[in-house]
Amino acid sequence: MKLDKIITSPSSWLKPGGPNDDIVLSTRVRLARNVAGRPFLSRLNPDEQNDLEAYLKQAVLAALKPDRYTWFELDDMSQIDRQCLVERHLISRELAAGEGRRGVAIGPKQRIAIMANEEDHLRLQVYAPGLQLQDAWQEADAIDDRLEARVTFTFSPNLGYLTACPTNVGTGLRASVMLHLPALVLTRQIEKVFNAVARLRLAVRGLYGEGTQATGDIYQISNQACLGRTEHDILETLGTVIAQIIAYEKEARGALVTDSPTALDDRVMRSWAILTHARIISSEETLALLSAVRLGIHMKRLKGVNIGTVNELFLTTRRGHLQKLRGAELGESERDGARAETIRERLGTN
Amino acid sequence: MKLDKIITSPSSWLKPGGPNDDIVLSTRVRLARNVAGRPFLSRLNPDEQNDLEAYLKQAVLAALKPDRYTWFELDDMSQIDRQCLVERHLISRELAAGEGRRGVAIGPKQRIAIMANEEDHLRLQVYAPGLQLQDAWQEADAIDDRLEARVTFTFSPNLGYLTACPTNVGTGLRASVMLHLPALVLTRQIEKVFNAVARLRLAVRGLYGEGTQATGDIYQISNQACLGRTEHDILETLGTVIAQIIAYEKEARGALVTDSPTALDDRVMRSWAILTHARIISSEETLALLSAVRLGIHMKRLKGVNIGTVNELFLTTRRGHLQKLRGAELGESERDGARAETIRERLGTN
Repeated sequence: MKLDKIITSPSSWLKPGGPNDDIVLSTRVRLARNVAGRPFLSRLNPDEQNDLEAYLKQAVLAALKPDRYTWFELDDMSQIDRQCLVERHLISRELAAGEGRRGVAIGPKQRIAIMANEEDHLRLQVYAPGLQLQDAWQEADAIDDRLEARVTFTFSPNLGYLTACPTNVGTGLRASVMLHLPALVLTRQIEKVFNAVARLRLAVRGLYGEGTQATGDIYQISNQACLGRTEHDILETLGTVIAQIIAYEKEARGALVTDSPTALDDRVMRSWAILTHARIISSEETLALLSAVRLGIHMKRLKGVNIGTVNELFLTTRRGHLQKLRGAELGESERDGARAETIRERLGTN
Repeated sequence: MKLDKIITSPSSWLKPGGPNDDIVLSTRVRLARNVAGRPFLSRLNPDEQNDLEAYLKQAVLAALKPDRYTWFELDDMSQIDRQCLVERHLISRELAAGEGRRGVAIGPKQRIAIMANEEDHLRLQVYAPGLQLQDAWQEADAIDDRLEARVTFTFSPNLGYLTACPTNVGTGLRASVMLHLPALVLTRQIEKVFNAVARLRLAVRGLYGEGTQATGDIYQISNQACLGRTEHDILETLGTVIAQIIAYEKEARGALVTDSPTALDDRVMRSWAILTHARIISSEETLALLSAVRLGIHMKRLKGVNIGTVNELFLTTRRGHLQKLRGAELGESERDGARAETIRERLGTN
């Protein structure tokens, strides 16, 4: 599949219809693996890095169905294309910004992405729409088995999989759930929830991972520790906490309708109005407005608007996608104009 | 004419179609007069005040066409009705809040209002849509002549008409022009203009007179001094300054289109969007948004919207009118909801 096709297709992790899709956008399971007998990336010279990448490309494509996966070289790729893949969560910001030979295999429906030469030799990621921790894990596990049939990964009987960063040693598993929690934000309960989450050794991040601010009331919650616990335990703890947060968000949504339905409608309708009329709009404002509109649709306060279109706008209004769409590099103020135009086009109000 | 009819009719000073109506909402000429041989209001006891009011009512109605004027007693009037007349600029806040017997004669099309027992015995006001200083003055002068045929006003050969406040002594004339100056505000030139105006001994006030903030980018500019100058001089100075301000505002509007047409459209379209979608809206926000929409219509950035409807909303979204419309006293948050609903109804987007 061509890169342009990928970048202009709907993203599977934003597709509505998954379990609990009113609150959970998507589930991700990631495994970190390194090839036995080869040093970690930071210890490789450029030739060794080239050689590793070629080896991984061949092994990954051979292990999986090669007609359903496409391998992309990051160092051949334009800045805008790399940015788009980051925005689609198909590659990490680290892989996009890295040096030397590095690649990614992108699988069917953009649900699977396997990065080579990121922090670890291999990073396998599986996405599923809505809350699907078990399914995503089983799929990742099956792919991992097929890779292990061809590649020997560094593994310690005491510690488990060895990784470049100690936080990933053990299972190498990071499971993460992307939640849309506008009602907890509006009712000022979000801090309380996150404090409880932190005590359970889970991490909270914004829409674009570590170091990014939570925007559009979207939060990723994931396990912090990989060591000394089985994959089963990790997923169970996370699943229990997510179920609790979903219950809190539902309760908060109920309270919004009970306590201040007009204020809720006002927020939803103003957000819809601005999205469909603005001529200049920043990325931050867009996410905040999309969040309110998403809430309004799921709470049936705003009718006749396609939720899939709204979900996709979380992605297509990002910097990389906007520039890809226009086929040109755009400065900030040009992006703010192009963003407003794209939104009006997509929402059918141009 | 019934009071309810007056309060629910379009207000003549907000009617589009007057000269320079893209910038000038209305012109007002006011004359202050006191009856010879009777002390000023502050020196009258209640019985004398009653007697004066009865005398003025009889004299005014006899001097003018009594079938075209209606006399209203303020002390019989509900709080909400008084508020509505203030919002329509038919009576002053002082008359509304005053004590004892006091009244107002309201003439054809709400263009003429004659207050009895305000600060002075009589305050005659003539309104005209757009910029019509000469016409409004001639009409006021003609009415003044007819009143003087029946009533002797206190007059000093040296000073001119004597009034309760020294600032009105002389002509008793205050001419004022209500201007909509959004482009001068947006381009941050408004302070400069007002400093120049102040040096010419003209006063700048907000939409609701002395002590009210300028809201919705609407400003009233009037002469400060009544003494030692003829009516002709007063009107000429004011007219010259107003013509200059109109030219500045036009220039600023031109610059908005030239320098940042998208920013202008963004402001206009966002304002329109919020007005037509909000469920809760304050009075201040309403005036700011109406200002942008009015600008957008006159600059042909927003089409298919009736300017008369928009002008009327400056009035019908005020506290008194909202309550009158609902036939009930409303608290602030109820008003904010009722205001949003009224706006959507009037703009045909409910």
